[in-house]
Amino acid sequence: MELWFSEQHTPYVRLSIKVERQLYSGQSDYQRIDVFESREFGRFLILDGCMMLTEKDEFIYHEMITHVPMAVNPNIRKILVIGAGDGGVVRELARYDTVEHIDMVEIDPLVVEVSRKYLPQTAGALDDPRVSIHYEDGLRYVRTRENEYDLIIVDSTDPFGPGEGLFTKEFYGNCYKALTEDGIMVNQCESPFYEEDARASQRAHKRIVESFPISKVYQVHIPTYPSGHWLFGFASKKYHPLRDFDPVAWNMKGIKTRYYTTRLHVGAFALPAYVEEMLRDVE
Amino acid sequence: MELWFSEQHTPYVRLSIKVERQLYSGQSDYQRIDVFESREFGRFLILDGCMMLTEKDEFIYHEMITHVPMAVNPNIRKILVIGAGDGGVVRELARYDTVEHIDMVEIDPLVVEVSRKYLPQTAGALDDPRVSIHYEDGLRYVRTRENEYDLIIVDSTDPFGPGEGLFTKEFYGNCYKALTEDGIMVNQCESPFYEEDARASQRAHKRIVESFPISKVYQVHIPTYPSGHWLFGFASKKYHPLRDFDPVAWNMKGIKTRYYTTRLHVGAFALPAYVEEMLRDVE
Repeated sequence: MELWFSEQHTPYVRLSIKVERQLYSGQSDYQRIDVFESREFGRFLILDGCMMLTEKDEFIYHEMITHVPMAVNPNIRKILVIGAGDGGVVRELARYDTVEHIDMVEIDPLVVEVSRKYLPQTAGALDDPRVSIHYEDGLRYVRTRENEYDLIIVDSTDPFGPGEGLFTKEFYGNCYKALTEDGIMVNQCESPFYEEDARASQRAHKRIVESFPISKVYQVHIPTYPSGHWLFGFASKKYHPLRDFDPVAWNMKGIKTRYYTTRLHVGAFALPAYVEEMLRDVE
Repeated sequence: MELWFSEQHTPYVRLSIKVERQLYSGQSDYQRIDVFESREFGRFLILDGCMMLTEKDEFIYHEMITHVPMAVNPNIRKILVIGAGDGGVVRELARYDTVEHIDMVEIDPLVVEVSRKYLPQTAGALDDPRVSIHYEDGLRYVRTRENEYDLIIVDSTDPFGPGEGLFTKEFYGNCYKALTEDGIMVNQCESPFYEEDARASQRAHKRIVESFPISKVYQVHIPTYPSGHWLFGFASKKYHPLRDFDPVAWNMKGIKTRYYTTRLHVGAFALPAYVEEMLRDVE
């Protein structure tokens, strides 16, 4: 039998993955949730038809959204994670002894439930005693917080549907307020390659630049995301992601990674000319 | 009407592109050649079913295979290009006034003819008076050359079919011999992500390490290639790609690029941990 999952990356491009079987399909109050099993990527999670993660390449996304800020400020103790119901971000953060508390705000309880059941590779650390899960709208949660977090990680879906509010100027402004004076915010920032994604990247960057004194973008290779070329935003009140980065201190921690290295940390902030230009246009 | 071109990246993954029409289809002595027109990528060239280039993203491949070595040694005068029948590599090299002569050795005259007719964006520079085109097997051509080229660029197809000989130890050894004492060889080196491609990368790197005292790998984002994560090899008798690199001198030339920058030059050599490990295993 041939069973293929396909995702349209644009109306004219699609990536297809051969599926062994569908493990789960359901509809929550917010979105449709599917989990598939495949030979190439292991299990993978789909929300509203869009690829969220595969067991084969999720390490890239989760390592790069967490270790970059953690290596810039080794004194991060209290963290807010928005979205991230699959648990991958929390898993990476939980590897730091220095982290004291993680508030994870996920709008959709069913994503967490499905991940716990079908994706133990990412969801395993959600039971860490330092983690509190709040089933709330991240946009609303962050409104009431002030001077509380050393790091906010915005692990949102795309800026359409439930993730839309997490790309607004209001949201970034509230994140700024919720951070301590040396706080850092990292967000997934879409892809620079296909036109619609590039506009979303640019718009998010513009709004973050308006809210934070330091705002830089770094890039990674994520083969199962549209174009494989993905961006993260690093925004901060005080710390520069390269000038205030101590690779020796991070390497001393002995955290074993498969994608992140302290050399790659620096390299990832060197962007292609066309991406630099696209971002500069809104700075 | 819906017309889709699909390429299998592995038996379990495929990328599909919506096609407006097929512009050309033919069979040479070496391979099947197709050219399509698409909304998303403009025109694209397929050899034996594999994506060679699209008008939308070919600048990434062609800039990164040429400007990296050209920026390391500004005195490159005589160049051998192997493969590259579409003309993209020659187009980028021809932008340097300092280049005196380019020998391009392409096994398949039909690739050049088809590119001239359907892909003027890349083939336009093939008429540069400094370029000599030789329709020969690159493997054989390089056997008889000695101490002649400052730079060899191996713009091969994959290591199956007509490109196979361009991934052998004999070939790399002959390239070493064909280079001057400060010569550099750059080759397309497949992808580290999917298993079969990764093995090809690793094998090529092993053979180059055995032939050259300096052998480093750098990475780029090429959305239309398998996984979008592509590697190039930089091998050299004398020059280190970072220690002997003078960004100021290159920027003084005023060559306008869309992907390559001198910051990215450095960043591209910072590889993910799993890629470093895969390469180290054969060094």
